[in-house]
Amino acid sequence: MHSSQTQIRVRYEETDQMGVVYHAKYFHWFEVARIHFLDEIGHPYKELEENGYFLPVLECSASFKQAAHFDDKLIIETEVSFPSMLKLSAEYKVVRNHSTIANGKTVHAFVSKEGKVMRPPSSFVEVMRQNSD
Amino acid sequence: MHSSQTQIRVRYEETDQMGVVYHAKYFHWFEVARIHFLDEIGHPYKELEENGYFLPVLECSASFKQAAHFDDKLIIETEVSFPSMLKLSAEYKVVRNHSTIANGKTVHAFVSKEGKVMRPPSSFVEVMRQNSD
Amino acid sequence: MHSSQTQIRVRYEETDQMGVVYHAKYFHWFEVARIHFLDEIGHPYKELEENGYFLPVLECSASFKQAAHFDDKLIIETEVSFPSMLKLSAEYKVVRNHSTIANGKTVHAFVSKEGKVMRPPSSFVEVMRQNSD
Amino acid sequence: MHSSQTQIRVRYEETDQMGVVYHAKYFHWFEVARIHFLDEIGHPYKELEENGYFLPVLECSASFKQAAHFDDKLIIETEVSFPSMLKLSAEYKVVRNHSTIANGKTVHAFVSKEGKVMRPPSSFVEVMRQNSD
Repeated sequence: MHSSQTQIRVRYEETDQMGVVYHAKYFHWFEVARIHFLDEIGHPYKELEENGYFLPVLECSASFKQAAHFDDKLIIETEVSFPSMLKLSAEYKVVRNHSTIANGKTVHAFVSKEGKVMRPPSSFVEVMRQNSD
Repeated sequence: MHSSQTQIRVRYEETDQMGVVYHAKYFHWFEVARIHFLDEIGHPYKELEENGYFLPVLECSASFKQAAHFDDKLIIETEVSFPSMLKLSAEYKVVRNHSTIANGKTVHAFVSKEGKVMRPPSSFVEVMRQNSD
Repeated sequence: MHSSQTQIRVRYEETDQMGVVYHAKYFHWFEVARIHFLDEIGHPYKELEENGYFLPVLECSASFKQAAHFDDKLIIETEVSFPSMLKLSAEYKVVRNHSTIANGKTVHAFVSKEGKVMRPPSSFVEVMRQNSD
Repeated sequence: MHSSQTQIRVRYEETDQMGVVYHAKYFHWFEVARIHFLDEIGHPYKELEENGYFLPVLECSASFKQAAHFDDKLIIETEVSFPSMLKLSAEYKVVRNHSTIANGKTVHAFVSKEGKVMRPPSSFVEVMRQNSD
């Protein structure tokens, strides 16, 4: 399984005085969606960290088609790929009423607590390889 | 020296759709003001942590008289007291154009990395005792 | 109905380098809990604003007994009272595994878009009076 | 003038439990840098909004070479270009001790309060055209 769906309800705190969600907050939702994805493939992020694997963000981006508003119920559709042994790439669609209002992407490395790049756990690699054809 | 003044310029990110600063953001400013106070007494917080002293928040509160707005230039007036060997108490006034628009308070303990309550460094105690009469 | 329960799952974004949740973030959760409470009594906050009623925070406070951590599943128990026609008071308990780890409070006024204090909608008053004995 | 420099001191609130700054917070700094740039060219953002011009973010991105830490003193170098009448593009370098630790970009439109795309004020266009060779 390489994709998942996550529900988000927009918090008041996430709005700004333009009356819409402040752009940087979408990355908080992408985090929620990524954490949920990792749950679904049986590798909760908390466990990864407990086992010495950290997934810092190397790159992130987003583009916005329509504004999100307070109290919107959104779906984040997440697709994760594994372009190399050392990188994880996640793409996000923010969907409201079946319409995509924003897109995003984050790229991650697996690193040790000291920040050294590592190979991911083999069970993780295994799961990500399944059905990847 | 037991008080200090810190300048804050309100960020757009700190506003919400009511067109004013979201209440929780004042605690970010109180942090900035507290860090500045610790600089001024010669005990930068970064050094405290490097020496094994952490200052988690045990209690925090704020009351709001007038709203703060985007781009406001505010002064945070901070007064720190030391009610017991194990607690640090900081009180904040948020001032705009010589008028107090909000008040706040945070109470802290000195703890070790493991979360055990500690006495503060003796040089810190010394500084805090000076002029406390 | 004057109380409600809301589930929160701690976001990574809400942690700080002490490895625990940053104190100001609890107020984001209190907001989520308050919004949920208003849903449950049939007065969603979004509708209140659409009808010209705003509920800014006049005071807020929290005290912390134990730290919250990334990925914790927490329950926020909210009790709302109505000490006068012009104020709404909400108290929050943050519960993890049946143990209260933090308490909080927010006090609100009903104001118009222009910031003028108002009486709440009569249907709101009605709901809040029910069962208040 | 099409570039500016802005100082940032990293807040504790901006760190996460990895001990570094959470990626989304860089966009808060980019906002501070952008606001500062607009000050420097004589078009403070607050005035733009008061005159009916809003600059929502259409796209944003960042890439991270080295982590930023609590209390770091950073310089944000901002370059703004004006690829068409309807778009403003800002590029950011985050510099620590003369070394670039991150890069970012935001793309904006000028819109009215109702969200309709507008031409920027002519005095703004004038300033941006000066020295653009």
